[in-house]
Amino acid sequence: MKYSFKNDYSEGCHPKILEALSQTNLDQQIGYGLDEYCISATDKILKLCNSSISTVHFVSGGTQANLILISAFLRPHESVISATTGHIFTNETGAIEATGHKIHSVETDDGKLKQSHIQSVLDLHQNKPHQLKQKLVYISNSTEIGTNYSKDELISLSNFCKEKKLYLMLDGARLGHALTAENNDLTLADIAKYTDAFYLGGTKNGALIGEAIIINNQDLQDEFGFHIKQKGGMLAKGRLLGIQFDVLMENNLYFDLAKHANFEAMKIKKVFSDNGFEFLSETFTNQIFPVLNQNQIDQLSESFDFYVWKKIDEEFSAIRLITSWATPENVTDQFCEAISGLKK
Amino acid sequence: MKYSFKNDYSEGCHPKILEALSQTNLDQQIGYGLDEYCISATDKILKLCNSSISTVHFVSGGTQANLILISAFLRPHESVISATTGHIFTNETGAIEATGHKIHSVETDDGKLKQSHIQSVLDLHQNKPHQLKQKLVYISNSTEIGTNYSKDELISLSNFCKEKKLYLMLDGARLGHALTAENNDLTLADIAKYTDAFYLGGTKNGALIGEAIIINNQDLQDEFGFHIKQKGGMLAKGRLLGIQFDVLMENNLYFDLAKHANFEAMKIKKVFSDNGFEFLSETFTNQIFPVLNQNQIDQLSESFDFYVWKKIDEEFSAIRLITSWATPENVTDQFCEAISGLKK
Amino acid sequence: MKYSFKNDYSEGCHPKILEALSQTNLDQQIGYGLDEYCISATDKILKLCNSSISTVHFVSGGTQANLILISAFLRPHESVISATTGHIFTNETGAIEATGHKIHSVETDDGKLKQSHIQSVLDLHQNKPHQLKQKLVYISNSTEIGTNYSKDELISLSNFCKEKKLYLMLDGARLGHALTAENNDLTLADIAKYTDAFYLGGTKNGALIGEAIIINNQDLQDEFGFHIKQKGGMLAKGRLLGIQFDVLMENNLYFDLAKHANFEAMKIKKVFSDNGFEFLSETFTNQIFPVLNQNQIDQLSESFDFYVWKKIDEEFSAIRLITSWATPENVTDQFCEAISGLKK
Amino acid sequence: MKYSFKNDYSEGCHPKILEALSQTNLDQQIGYGLDEYCISATDKILKLCNSSISTVHFVSGGTQANLILISAFLRPHESVISATTGHIFTNETGAIEATGHKIHSVETDDGKLKQSHIQSVLDLHQNKPHQLKQKLVYISNSTEIGTNYSKDELISLSNFCKEKKLYLMLDGARLGHALTAENNDLTLADIAKYTDAFYLGGTKNGALIGEAIIINNQDLQDEFGFHIKQKGGMLAKGRLLGIQFDVLMENNLYFDLAKHANFEAMKIKKVFSDNGFEFLSETFTNQIFPVLNQNQIDQLSESFDFYVWKKIDEEFSAIRLITSWATPENVTDQFCEAISGLKK
Repeated sequence: MKYSFKNDYSEGCHPKILEALSQTNLDQQIGYGLDEYCISATDKILKLCNSSISTVHFVSGGTQANLILISAFLRPHESVISATTGHIFTNETGAIEATGHKIHSVETDDGKLKQSHIQSVLDLHQNKPHQLKQKLVYISNSTEIGTNYSKDELISLSNFCKEKKLYLMLDGARLGHALTAENNDLTLADIAKYTDAFYLGGTKNGALIGEAIIINNQDLQDEFGFHIKQKGGMLAKGRLLGIQFDVLMENNLYFDLAKHANFEAMKIKKVFSDNGFEFLSETFTNQIFPVLNQNQIDQLSESFDFYVWKKIDEEFSAIRLITSWATPENVTDQFCEAISGLKK
Repeated sequence: MKYSFKNDYSEGCHPKILEALSQTNLDQQIGYGLDEYCISATDKILKLCNSSISTVHFVSGGTQANLILISAFLRPHESVISATTGHIFTNETGAIEATGHKIHSVETDDGKLKQSHIQSVLDLHQNKPHQLKQKLVYISNSTEIGTNYSKDELISLSNFCKEKKLYLMLDGARLGHALTAENNDLTLADIAKYTDAFYLGGTKNGALIGEAIIINNQDLQDEFGFHIKQKGGMLAKGRLLGIQFDVLMENNLYFDLAKHANFEAMKIKKVFSDNGFEFLSETFTNQIFPVLNQNQIDQLSESFDFYVWKKIDEEFSAIRLITSWATPENVTDQFCEAISGLKK
Repeated sequence: MKYSFKNDYSEGCHPKILEALSQTNLDQQIGYGLDEYCISATDKILKLCNSSISTVHFVSGGTQANLILISAFLRPHESVISATTGHIFTNETGAIEATGHKIHSVETDDGKLKQSHIQSVLDLHQNKPHQLKQKLVYISNSTEIGTNYSKDELISLSNFCKEKKLYLMLDGARLGHALTAENNDLTLADIAKYTDAFYLGGTKNGALIGEAIIINNQDLQDEFGFHIKQKGGMLAKGRLLGIQFDVLMENNLYFDLAKHANFEAMKIKKVFSDNGFEFLSETFTNQIFPVLNQNQIDQLSESFDFYVWKKIDEEFSAIRLITSWATPENVTDQFCEAISGLKK
Repeated sequence: MKYSFKNDYSEGCHPKILEALSQTNLDQQIGYGLDEYCISATDKILKLCNSSISTVHFVSGGTQANLILISAFLRPHESVISATTGHIFTNETGAIEATGHKIHSVETDDGKLKQSHIQSVLDLHQNKPHQLKQKLVYISNSTEIGTNYSKDELISLSNFCKEKKLYLMLDGARLGHALTAENNDLTLADIAKYTDAFYLGGTKNGALIGEAIIINNQDLQDEFGFHIKQKGGMLAKGRLLGIQFDVLMENNLYFDLAKHANFEAMKIKKVFSDNGFEFLSETFTNQIFPVLNQNQIDQLSESFDFYVWKKIDEEFSAIRLITSWATPENVTDQFCEAISGLKK
């Protein structure tokens, strides 16, 4: 079978998680997230967030996290601002709208929202109450196209949102990859400080399932459990989520796994670069988008799986390559060789 | 720590599941339920259902299964009929109403819906279109109070629903326990034949998470994946669900686990019975509701955990005891001894 | 054609409204409720409410008022308590559930909610967050079965709701009839003082359409216009609503019309009473429910239209008779004669 | 007071409507749209539609019509395609999303959707079920910026939608103006033939309130009354809507009123044109968008009210002028003189 660079959720989970599941398997625990592993994982996360006021909740996946957070935070007449590349806007089957809320989308160059983008949406919606009240800004870090926010960018955005009375929510399905990218200057504590809420993705960074929601704005913490339950996100065996994050947050494992993924991606990026290939966007995380001609795509496809992402012109297309915590170094090496050997 | 008879989701999962997770851990698989384990589990389930036309989908939990099924099946003006004890009516934080649908509730003696219950709801809603159109009947087997349906009861209900153009949906969070109860005369194939849709509960019968949804009515199968995704129920690593059901459906494991739970419950029931205790309702599954006085409750509570379920009078209350696939025989034995030794 | 006592919305509107519509017809006005008639009607209503802090909004009908108020006031996990006879529970096609909120219903003797009813619902929902948070109590005055609240009853209910942090909302589709009933001791100012929000029904008391929403709780007033617009309740020609309430609130017309309806009903009630008939419930408003045998129902039906409301036994049924602002005195007199002439 | 060209709902209604309301005022009628006036108006509309299979329903306003139609027609995972100028996309406070459905928007030159616009949305949503299923195309005629569809355009669009299994729904808030525009070649029968559903606007063409919904696709007619009631759109005194449309559909009144509005707009357009002004878009209905400099805008504003619609550059802006059934000829003449007299 061909090795797949299609995504970062092709394998199971980090072996330490399996070990922990085995070791704790027959302990009786209270259900619904009140078990001791959830409590321990919460403590570790809050320590890393350097926050004593944030609250932590564990849910199964990203779409679930997004729809629960947004529907819990907004009143019926309040809406969301997102980049057109935002996961909630394009790849969640209208999950947010299904809870009653419109998403206003803005085109960006690099998947990152800036103040000007948000202001442009506000400007277009001055005719109240015939137009919605914008109330929440949704960003992803790393973004859906692999880019990541700098500390300056996040602080500016955060200040702007506060000024405009907008909540800032960060989709961290790949936050580990963002925070360990070579160009990153943000910490988890910064994320907790400058957002109203965010989540730390497990599914794409070594867990079987699971995202850890962190709510920093105290006004938004109230009665959040009701929303998780109502939307079908409260697992009877919450321990499954607690144990995983308890392992991932121990000894920097979460960040080490992400760093590995980034490192493998950067190795591949360098080979493409050295061989004169261009990229759809410059990324430092575990997603890269090199531009190849059809002949080259066919050659690489013989031994490796990946998505053809975007047609550039009649001859060229960008492909998407994603590495993960599980990508073996030797496979990356083989892939790099294959790249170096590509014929026109 | 005291042993808990509070519920059947206090432990992790059956060891064979952990084994399978380990063995398959680094296989690369396609996401979102298209992996080979989901396919294999689906085959096994359909074989047991003796159905070639049903479709199978895996989701994380019961509330999620209920809300996805009901919101996918109903148009906005269609409503649900449930017993007042129905899980969707009392214990899911309004999850069904949150998708826009009313649940009409009916009082029952034993948690089981009969034709007369349904007819009484239909009779009360003749003033169309000022009153809703009832369209789906929700039942649980075993019920939330431990009772289970006979084949005759299910067939009658099924025929009545067909006649009235009502869908019949069965919540099978504890279907394993129902189908292995000593008074049971139903098979999984019967369930598939006489319902429009149902689910087979994993969470309460040896899985870490997971319910297998089976849709038998071909009119309702169309485009179901959209609904799973939109409601946040589609796991990127669908393999986690596939692997578990693949193991549980192998060599009768699923039913053996349920049978064990029932067996332990019946042992406890017999001891209560032999010692002259009465029960809130007569049950043959893994839930029993003996009636004790406060003094006896206090005595049992010293070494065991359980819920006090319902006050009967000033002196007596019914307690709820739930056994599971993981209940150790020796613990049951100790508990039985404690019962026999109860003082007035 | 037979005269109909089926309801109080069989005719058009009070002639003074038609006059006002004609006189103002070609005045140009701003749309969406910002016209000068809405402003004038608002002033008159607030004066009668003896409230300087309440806000007033006009919408088309009762179901619309109910669904806008409730969905604007509640967060997704909050629910409503209503009598089983409540209009929102039985006769609005699931309008409230369609906005995502469950209604908990309680059986009452007379359609009126008391503290004990509410407490019984609260008692049944202690298992948070698996059960909803009750947040709003819905009452109707006069009720759907013609009864009305006393001042003591309303104050008790209001105090209880405040203590339990529940909003108290009053459906006043027939509030005029309640406030002019011979047994009434409430004023419009009392209603404004003891409820968080209510509405004053126009449709059933002389208007073509229209209910005036009054929000007394300042926490609930914020941004209400968005909700009216989003739910399709904001008329471009809001003047149609403003003009009607401006006329109805002038010179006590609204209350005079309701008083007339009540008076005609009480005349009929007296004749039934004098002739030894019983009633389903004792009412002092424009709805009465005398109990007749089938033969008597047939006799009355020859010349008059009305609903057979409820079967009492094989021989007897209660009928519902509704009078209105438009019921001609001479028709009532003819009807009374017919009653007196009824044969067994 | 200055005469306002701000919109076409500044006045009350055509005097013949007031007459009919007076004449019928005390007739007793059945409620909820089953009165004889609704029946008569339905007959007249269906005759003009040349359709024996369409069904007709009357509701209060455009936002209400849009949200009821779309939520009744779509399943939860189905979405809508609209121009960015579409009323549902920009000016209805998220009413459609509040019922759970996403609107995909497309930029157009002239407010009119073409096949290529729709195809571009379909192309972007191939990743099922992670992306929504597009199911309904929403167009307006005349559009929100005054343009109107030709017969060729509508037929092409209709064929394309059929081929792609998309419903075609037409917002006819200003359909009268479109069908009487000098460049129009469509009839009401064409609209009924080539759309699945549409509505005929009363509010902006001489009624106090009211839009007549016409459903042509028989698959979509089923149980529509439930949706009207559930969304708060069913008036107890449905006669108010029936009477108005009965009058408007008599003797071509509806079209004569629209023709008058168009005629007055075209007079103004010609004067602007003759004086060398340009327009934002070329329109033949009752909305025109001439481009003036600030000085000219100030001059006109002294005696007339209108909206400044869009800034063109530092010096110039387009204004929006709307005429109506009620615009007096002599006011138009005064306005034309004022235009001719504009100084640079």
